[in-house]
Amino acid sequence: MAYFKDKDFRESKHDSENLIFGTRAVIEAVSAGKEIDKIIIQKGLSNQLFSELRKAIQGKEIPLQFAPPEKLNRLTSKNHQGVVAFIAEVTYYQVEDKLSEVFEQGKTPLVLLLDRVTDVRNFGAIARSAECAGVDFIIIPSRGAAQINADAVKTSAGALNRIPVCREENLKNTLTYLKESGLQIIACHEKTDQYYFKADFTKPTVIIMGSEENGISNEYIKRSDMQVKIPMIGHIASLNVSVATGIILFEAVKQRL
Amino acid sequence: MAYFKDKDFRESKHDSENLIFGTRAVIEAVSAGKEIDKIIIQKGLSNQLFSELRKAIQGKEIPLQFAPPEKLNRLTSKNHQGVVAFIAEVTYYQVEDKLSEVFEQGKTPLVLLLDRVTDVRNFGAIARSAECAGVDFIIIPSRGAAQINADAVKTSAGALNRIPVCREENLKNTLTYLKESGLQIIACHEKTDQYYFKADFTKPTVIIMGSEENGISNEYIKRSDMQVKIPMIGHIASLNVSVATGIILFEAVKQRL
Repeated sequence: MAYFKDKDFRESKHDSENLIFGTRAVIEAVSAGKEIDKIIIQKGLSNQLFSELRKAIQGKEIPLQFAPPEKLNRLTSKNHQGVVAFIAEVTYYQVEDKLSEVFEQGKTPLVLLLDRVTDVRNFGAIARSAECAGVDFIIIPSRGAAQINADAVKTSAGALNRIPVCREENLKNTLTYLKESGLQIIACHEKTDQYYFKADFTKPTVIIMGSEENGISNEYIKRSDMQVKIPMIGHIASLNVSVATGIILFEAVKQRL
Repeated sequence: MAYFKDKDFRESKHDSENLIFGTRAVIEAVSAGKEIDKIIIQKGLSNQLFSELRKAIQGKEIPLQFAPPEKLNRLTSKNHQGVVAFIAEVTYYQVEDKLSEVFEQGKTPLVLLLDRVTDVRNFGAIARSAECAGVDFIIIPSRGAAQINADAVKTSAGALNRIPVCREENLKNTLTYLKESGLQIIACHEKTDQYYFKADFTKPTVIIMGSEENGISNEYIKRSDMQVKIPMIGHIASLNVSVATGIILFEAVKQRL
């Protein structure tokens, strides 16, 4: 069961496709084994169906949150009967576990770390490219990442159901861990002179991509072994982050063929 | 002044940002020199403001179309007063003119032809990448292309204001013309064994990209000198067309550096 520690994420606007509303519908989702992020229950709710819901979630570690009716009304305009559930679209993994698996399989890790990529569609498109490029797992921060909702999964063409996503509280520690595990860290941004195709992607590699607005945090740049950029010919001189990520990832694919 | 011959395009749904409604607003847009695709006028309209509009468009080659009120009501729910204008987002060019310019500048042409890429955002993202990769111009078909509306221009990060777009009625003739002009035609799709980085993009080149759904028309494949694909590692084995285009274009950039 996925459990989001990130309060901002939990409170943020959710795509309606991520919501289940109505006590009966939520009971059915729980009974069908759907992974639920949390259930919001209207304060003071007490009826026969609610007792059934309590029974259904017994023993399952689903976080409950009690809220005034206004909050539930803000989440959906439909008849929620005092119960709204958030469906988890993906299961989050631990970097340590996933990296161990990659090493156990005798593979050369190719890991993608996304710093502050908040656009849901960009994130989905990146996940799709990453899956096509054989990326082993994607790392995102607990805060300031795109919400992985139904729209992200759809844009990913289902890739988010295949490629593991690791959410980490502290990416600095994660990067240190990855370096100590023998991975080189390659940060891709504009403020460098080195072209991306000069990097040796046949080594165990973490690629860091930043957001279009904010680039990559200095703290992560500092921890990188190499900074690379994509040469720009035109006037705009700025690619969409999902296109830029595709270009870098498929350079890695090419080198590893 | 741009004039769209493509009826389907003219009749298709327009982004509200592309519409100007109300006689006064349309008069002002015309007077301000905005490029107008066409003006739709309610049949039988006859008032003082309409006479002013007639005066404003005198001598300008703006197509007028007279339509029943229901048609105007379908275009906008706002108070249109019987007059709706479509703003042209880009000016279309002729392949012959643009190719001559490229040769006159002593450049090695890099041309992108998009077959049946109908998604507005994909088209915008592709235009952005093309501008960043120094593509000389983009060719699209008159029918079955994405509508170049405000959303496309926005997604292109303004690239569509910089990179010329040529609309052609008959892409087969266009491809024949380009071949005869000394350009190699490289078609990028999945049904081939040759990898894209085996192509020599330092030659004068047309790259054909197809839609995700339909690929590239056989008629264009037949006229291509080389077919290339992007190697796929994962299970999904299908990239977003804007990402795929970025990967191909920046291989060309790299080879031409």
